Amino acid sequence: MTIESSAAQARKASIMMSALTAEQKNQALDAIRVALRENAGKIIRENQADLAQAEKDNLAAPLLKRLKFDQSKIDGVCDGIDSLLALPDPVGRTLSATELDEGLELYKVTCPIGVIGVIFESRPDALVQISTLCLKSGNAVLLKGGSEAARTNRVLAQVIAEAAGHAGLPDGWLALMETRADVAALLNLDSYIDLIIPRGSNEFVRHIMDSTTIPVLGHADGICHVYVDKDADIEMAVRIAVDSKCQYVAVCNAAETLLVHANIAEKFLPKVKDVLEEKKVELRGCEKTRQIIEAQAATEEDWKTEYLDSILSIRVVDSLEAAIDHINTYGSGHTDAIVTADKQAALQFMDRVDSADVFWNASTRFSDGFRYGLGAEVGISTNKIHARGPVGLEGLLIYKWRLIGSGQTVAEYGKGGTSFMHKPLKKTWK
Amino acid sequence: MTIESSAAQARKASIMMSALTAEQKNQALDAIRVALRENAGKIIRENQADLAQAEKDNLAAPLLKRLKFDQSKIDGVCDGIDSLLALPDPVGRTLSATELDEGLELYKVTCPIGVIGVIFESRPDALVQISTLCLKSGNAVLLKGGSEAARTNRVLAQVIAEAAGHAGLPDGWLALMETRADVAALLNLDSYIDLIIPRGSNEFVRHIMDSTTIPVLGHADGICHVYVDKDADIEMAVRIAVDSKCQYVAVCNAAETLLVHANIAEKFLPKVKDVLEEKKVELRGCEKTRQIIEAQAATEEDWKTEYLDSILSIRVVDSLEAAIDHINTYGSGHTDAIVTADKQAALQFMDRVDSADVFWNASTRFSDGFRYGLGAEVGISTNKIHARGPVGLEGLLIYKWRLIGSGQTVAEYGKGGTSFMHKPLKKTWK
Repeated sequence: MTIESSAAQARKASIMMSALTAEQKNQALDAIRVALRENAGKIIRENQADLAQAEKDNLAAPLLKRLKFDQSKIDGVCDGIDSLLALPDPVGRTLSATELDEGLELYKVTCPIGVIGVIFESRPDALVQISTLCLKSGNAVLLKGGSEAARTNRVLAQVIAEAAGHAGLPDGWLALMETRADVAALLNLDSYIDLIIPRGSNEFVRHIMDSTTIPVLGHADGICHVYVDKDADIEMAVRIAVDSKCQYVAVCNAAETLLVHANIAEKFLPKVKDVLEEKKVELRGCEKTRQIIEAQAATEEDWKTEYLDSILSIRVVDSLEAAIDHINTYGSGHTDAIVTADKQAALQFMDRVDSADVFWNASTRFSDGFRYGLGAEVGISTNKIHARGPVGLEGLLIYKWRLIGSGQTVAEYGKGGTSFMHKPLKKTWK
Repeated sequence: MTIESSAAQARKASIMMSALTAEQKNQALDAIRVALRENAGKIIRENQADLAQAEKDNLAAPLLKRLKFDQSKIDGVCDGIDSLLALPDPVGRTLSATELDEGLELYKVTCPIGVIGVIFESRPDALVQISTLCLKSGNAVLLKGGSEAARTNRVLAQVIAEAAGHAGLPDGWLALMETRADVAALLNLDSYIDLIIPRGSNEFVRHIMDSTTIPVLGHADGICHVYVDKDADIEMAVRIAVDSKCQYVAVCNAAETLLVHANIAEKFLPKVKDVLEEKKVELRGCEKTRQIIEAQAATEEDWKTEYLDSILSIRVVDSLEAAIDHINTYGSGHTDAIVTADKQAALQFMDRVDSADVFWNASTRFSDGFRYGLGAEVGISTNKIHARGPVGLEGLLIYKWRLIGSGQTVAEYGKGGTSFMHKPLKKTWK
């Protein structure tokens, strides 16, 4: 089957998907969970074949680790399905209701987006997570995984599609693409695909974003900042800076740059340096920083770099304004925190820092769907439209306007005719 | 100034704009309204120069009409500003609030998108409308109008920018582009511009959508349908079909195709034909239609055509399913209506028709921001993300996650540590 015909079939299936009941979707999710456990042996065998090939091809150790899909990974994705089963149906929720006139009621009601294209590197768990998220939200999905995980992805897609099919889902709601040419084709299918979600390295995500006119949900860089204001509690500032940098360095919400107000730098920097050095963090400082503590010299390039490693750049700034300017200039609009006891400064910071997540006296590492209590995380977005920051199932939804009348025409309204009531209603559409 | 430096300045201004109070924004809107009235003479003179040039250039009559900006147009845009003044500030609204833990509160709060690029053809009123909508929602705006309205647009932009500047708005929050090369440049400035709103012909909007990776809010075609189900009240179906087609033919929410269930076609078609012929509507029917009433033969092309004229294509279908299929195949995802007394059929239709607006027993012409009671209309969108159907000010907004803590770190949570409460809060962030 060509990509285009798979996409056309997914579009068709998406219409059926949008009309499924909560029960139908949950039955399919349950069937998928059972099938994944029943087929664990087969899945692990295929994954071992992928792993053997990857070792032969000298794949780097971190990639091998991400490629591995063993019983504990199967348990993990099944736990994820359990959480999805527990969530209420996100489709069919009434967002607003208005009585336009007697017997003429307007409802804004959530519905699936349609067809989601998902392109991910190594990790086969992404295939299960994202396809079950799409199912719960009533979307069809086209998936393209990394070629090194081809066998694992193939068996996973097959197990999921079969189980869901037996549970009554329409053919073609899930399809797997396998070649690089498929991705190029997918990025051009804007008449079938409504949203693309890329999962992978920064370069990979940026490439996808630059190569399609289809909307993309995600983030490339995560250049996050902690700003220690002149009115910060020093002990708290040390704790937040260290957690933001060190708690897990390889993730997008880890801090890369520490900004410090000049008035507090002499007291704060030596203290934070002691803890960071203990944690083996390499420091790169601006000139003013290096007058206070020992550090490598930071260059302009450092302010733009997401290290994803035990490296922290430090800059002393003369004002809150300068800190905000630095973040809006060099940041990636992901997550930025201020540490201060001054409420006005905190409000200024949260108003003016143009990022998805703006924190006051908390670690940047809190920026995460699970910690936010979203129930499920579709991804983290630095987009300025649709969904921003950690995105739950609502990122896979849009709405329809349902107008329920009793024969009204527009000609009756307007000059000299009936006028609209526009009265908010406290009821749902069904 | 180059486009890029204007865009950079707009980005900078957008940071200030996002922190303006409701009072500051309303004062600026009020100042703009006063200035437009005070400068009415100058504005009309510049418009007359544009009109004279356009006549010399043999511009078509409908374009000349749209280009005209006289006292009544000035009154119209000032009325629009009055409505905006009456609306509550859309920025800073708390969409959700969650207590993650004691002293750790998460708020999802509306904020402006940032920099909006607006590209519009002839009508100078669009410049005033969209720039005041951007102001009310705290966005900066880059505008590009039609070259035939260059003088009118220049004086309008100048009057607005000056009045807003005196009222305290930051320099560069509004900038006017003047050449075609500017548009090409604008479509590439994805690091400065967050959203593009095109206003103009279908071809124009489609061209913009196909030429940029910046998100575009709008619609190209409006191929709307009325489906008369077998259980329709015939008199109601005639009324809705005629209003949907004839009440105003040149607009995107007018019907272009009438679908009729085979079981009702013989009763319904002759009745609707009588009224449509009286209104001078040309009918183009499928074979089955032409066995019942006189009509030109419709071709495949007719199902894909937005006439924007007194022409209606008619197709007899064998089932509700066939009607839904036709709409999802040939429609533009704008507005589609079913006429029926059968609630189950209506629900099926509204669930499965993949359009922004799905109506039951009401004219397609209701699909409009004013009729919906949105207060202000940014445009009508057939997008599947962000905003769909008639879009009010909320289309110019996104949200930020504001996390307010008291020194929390992620290391404290998780296995063996503190666990999250995730308790919904009934309060706003400030």
